[in-house]
Amino acid sequence: MPQYKLTYFNLRGWAEPARQLFKLAHVDFEDVRLEPLKSVENGTPEWEALKPKTPFGQLPVLNVDGFDIPQSAAILRYLGRKFGYAGKTPEEEAWVDAMVDQFKDFVTPLRQLIMAQRGGNAEEIEKVQRETFGPARDNLFKILNGILEKSKSGFLVGDGVTWADLVIADIITTMEKLGVFDVTSAENKKLTDFREKVNSIPEIKEHNEQRPDSVV
Amino acid sequence: MPQYKLTYFNLRGWAEPARQLFKLAHVDFEDVRLEPLKSVENGTPEWEALKPKTPFGQLPVLNVDGFDIPQSAAILRYLGRKFGYAGKTPEEEAWVDAMVDQFKDFVTPLRQLIMAQRGGNAEEIEKVQRETFGPARDNLFKILNGILEKSKSGFLVGDGVTWADLVIADIITTMEKLGVFDVTSAENKKLTDFREKVNSIPEIKEHNEQRPDSVV
Repeated sequence: MPQYKLTYFNLRGWAEPARQLFKLAHVDFEDVRLEPLKSVENGTPEWEALKPKTPFGQLPVLNVDGFDIPQSAAILRYLGRKFGYAGKTPEEEAWVDAMVDQFKDFVTPLRQLIMAQRGGNAEEIEKVQRETFGPARDNLFKILNGILEKSKSGFLVGDGVTWADLVIADIITTMEKLGVFDVTSAENKKLTDFREKVNSIPEIKEHNEQRPDSVV
Repeated sequence: MPQYKLTYFNLRGWAEPARQLFKLAHVDFEDVRLEPLKSVENGTPEWEALKPKTPFGQLPVLNVDGFDIPQSAAILRYLGRKFGYAGKTPEEEAWVDAMVDQFKDFVTPLRQLIMAQRGGNAEEIEKVQRETFGPARDNLFKILNGILEKSKSGFLVGDGVTWADLVIADIITTMEKLGVFDVTSAENKKLTDFREKVNSIPEIKEHNEQRPDSVV
């Protein structure tokens, strides 16, 4: 079995679905967690020392027997395929990829909302919600709800859990923590049930109960 | 052999590397090209009719024997793996994925520049160049130059061309056409030579000579 080391900040963020994949597959890994940055501009001494040694100057990085893999989706796909959570056919794999890319198109508006919330200006938060975050979320949710409506398994692709499910379930939690996903709302029922289904998988449930929690 | 149909606008854009992959692999496909939109808000009747039938309300879409695959990177990865241009090991495949995700992180600033150029306000263009596009481009180019410096083959990953090379070579052309990549600049030499290497592959050369050209 290869030696895996996953390096990220002490946040869920871009690394959490990878940590969950290790747990799902019952594979040991070294879970290296750096102190989170206060902002992109404000590095910590620990991160400033590590940064030039990473392939792209970013985290997460997965190290496999000494070989570094950067970029969160590339890491997830690599582990998903190794461990059997990437789809069962080339077509299922393409749909897993497409779901995650669709989610990634939503990251810029989500980041704008997070920045506005940190800024604390109510007018700016309202503007971002109305003009960018809101429409982007509505578009993503419409796609996700349509897919879940047709799904026989209750998962996004095929008949079992994939890394796309982990990514989407985790982002629902992030949005809930940011106050922009209401789990009691009827229109969010499908997505709330979906997250519950993912988080009820015994390995995921145990992982989530034991992990250090964070807003993002 | 499956029947392939690739639907996109009559632009290079997000579909061009997929068209090049078909040519590289000598595989026939139906190259459906819709009239380009004037803006995201200004649909054409043709696109408005097709849009609700696409999986995510977006193009490109690849249809394989009646099965739709959305999202450009998912399409490229699917074809790249089918045709043998996705890397030769799981680790090479992960690096191809990581290169393209790193490029995708650059798309938001690139889009901001395109929007500013369309707006035609010189001050706004200068501001975007200085604050967002410029730093993002410098970061991406630093990564690409570092990788090309270490590459023995002259390609980004492994010893042959992959779909990541096609994506990066094409975006260099787009940046050149937008006036933000100077092929005569010494500091761009590695990237200029790299693009030339990709575009000199006989199938790519023939394809590029025959294609309808566009700025993006």
